[in-house]
Amino acid sequence: MTPRFEEFALIESLRRRGLTDPRVAVGIGDDAAVLARGERDLLVTVDMLLEGVHFDLSLTSPWQVGRKAIGVNLSDIAAMAGEPVAAFVALGLPDGSTSAMADELMEGIASHGSEFGVVLAGGDTNRSKSGLVVALTLLGRPTGRGPVLRSGARPGDVLCVTGSLGGSLAGRHWSFPPRVREAQQLHESVELHAMIDVSDGIGSDIFHLARASGCGFVIDADAVPISESLPVDAKSQLDHALNDGEDFELLFAIPRESSARLLKSPPFAEPPITVIGEAIAESGVFLRRGETKVSLEPGGYVHSW
Amino acid sequence: MTPRFEEFALIESLRRRGLTDPRVAVGIGDDAAVLARGERDLLVTVDMLLEGVHFDLSLTSPWQVGRKAIGVNLSDIAAMAGEPVAAFVALGLPDGSTSAMADELMEGIASHGSEFGVVLAGGDTNRSKSGLVVALTLLGRPTGRGPVLRSGARPGDVLCVTGSLGGSLAGRHWSFPPRVREAQQLHESVELHAMIDVSDGIGSDIFHLARASGCGFVIDADAVPISESLPVDAKSQLDHALNDGEDFELLFAIPRESSARLLKSPPFAEPPITVIGEAIAESGVFLRRGETKVSLEPGGYVHSW
Repeated sequence: MTPRFEEFALIESLRRRGLTDPRVAVGIGDDAAVLARGERDLLVTVDMLLEGVHFDLSLTSPWQVGRKAIGVNLSDIAAMAGEPVAAFVALGLPDGSTSAMADELMEGIASHGSEFGVVLAGGDTNRSKSGLVVALTLLGRPTGRGPVLRSGARPGDVLCVTGSLGGSLAGRHWSFPPRVREAQQLHESVELHAMIDVSDGIGSDIFHLARASGCGFVIDADAVPISESLPVDAKSQLDHALNDGEDFELLFAIPRESSARLLKSPPFAEPPITVIGEAIAESGVFLRRGETKVSLEPGGYVHSW
Repeated sequence: MTPRFEEFALIESLRRRGLTDPRVAVGIGDDAAVLARGERDLLVTVDMLLEGVHFDLSLTSPWQVGRKAIGVNLSDIAAMAGEPVAAFVALGLPDGSTSAMADELMEGIASHGSEFGVVLAGGDTNRSKSGLVVALTLLGRPTGRGPVLRSGARPGDVLCVTGSLGGSLAGRHWSFPPRVREAQQLHESVELHAMIDVSDGIGSDIFHLARASGCGFVIDADAVPISESLPVDAKSQLDHALNDGEDFELLFAIPRESSARLLKSPPFAEPPITVIGEAIAESGVFLRRGETKVSLEPGGYVHSW
């Protein structure tokens, strides 16, 4: 497995260096960087898709690749409850690829971006000896109460997730709706202590919230909303829901006293909001069913249920 | 030859759409985009380097690749006379590559960036089935009189270039100094009507100034500063200087009345500033020697001298 960007030794030292730079409000290690820009901060996120790793052009259209390239970045801006603004696209185009292919890819980016008010503001095209490569940078602005970070969860907070989880790689990961508007509506209606978008599966992403917030979490196994796309097999459904990834739903922690009101009057009817657990003072992540509580490892499969 | 990003049909239509968006002061088609950010605009530029196309790891170190990845973006910010601020790096790492390789690459980016006050603020790492890929996005701020665009040259303006041209691909393109400080100093000391960094060679890049400014240019063949790295061969030296590319010098147009003062008291001793021609009302680009004037095509070789 390729390490995350923030996991390289050098990058960790750079991250610490960046912490002291007044121009960087939030650097490496959250869903997007936050640049301090005087009156209004700026959100920046970048993501790369590579042929042969993230997609196969015999199975996926260039339009779908473009849609996903901007979709994953939109999801990162959503995870900060931000407003996406401008996209920048760097392309590696294989020798022999047609300009129709590039146009279709760009159309996928532009049409999906325009659903969220994103303007395509720049880019770079190159030959590639090695398949199609798309790197997309998305800039945005914080909304309402500022950017929602991963670091604000507190023991006692209620842990929630939008939509349902698992099975995305069967197809939904090409067409998922980034939760941009939902995140903004949540940000208006409740105090979001911490939030992340579910890209690796909540069984991994919850650890990012835990690490950044300096607390632990308990997940109620029977509360995890299972995607209807998963085969009815009670034994493995939970594993899929925790570990498949690419759900691009929102995982967030809110004060306990707000949770009843949020669930009674959610700011949107779809997707559903589900309470799946709570933040605890103890470090670590645990899966709970009745009286049983097992420790969870990042991406670890749950064989004991 | 891969078309430039702005040359795709779809992107041209997106570019026009972007022209009407109040959030985008300058969109696709200049050295960097300019986002309107209330009190202070933002510059954004992106560039991708691919193994097998831009570099060969048996000849070039990961450190050099990293240095160039940020160098070409620094050169774009320089071409706007901007101040670089924050870099975002998306990586595709070949299967089997070591984290030492990634660290060396990132060190090349970070150390060169820090020479110019750039903080590394985010990134994304991926596996690659197809060689090393580096996409770097650089954000910056305009300085002094605002961003210097390609579009402000006027007939009568004097055309200048920093440094000397040609032969960069023999090695200098791995170690060129981006003209960030020089551009800022020029911006303070003279009214820069239009500027571009020389990436494809002045024989091509001059056409970007001409198109954006709606004027033509005459280049004095004997005034073009020839790199000492070129073999002494009078017949081909000018071709190399015009067309080799990757010089990453500054090509700029200034008012005629300021040019004598600038050349008499340049804001820096090195690199030299050379007057190589002038802007004209007539469209097209011409190469002049004595009484002879020939029309130049983008990247066209000059066989007639």
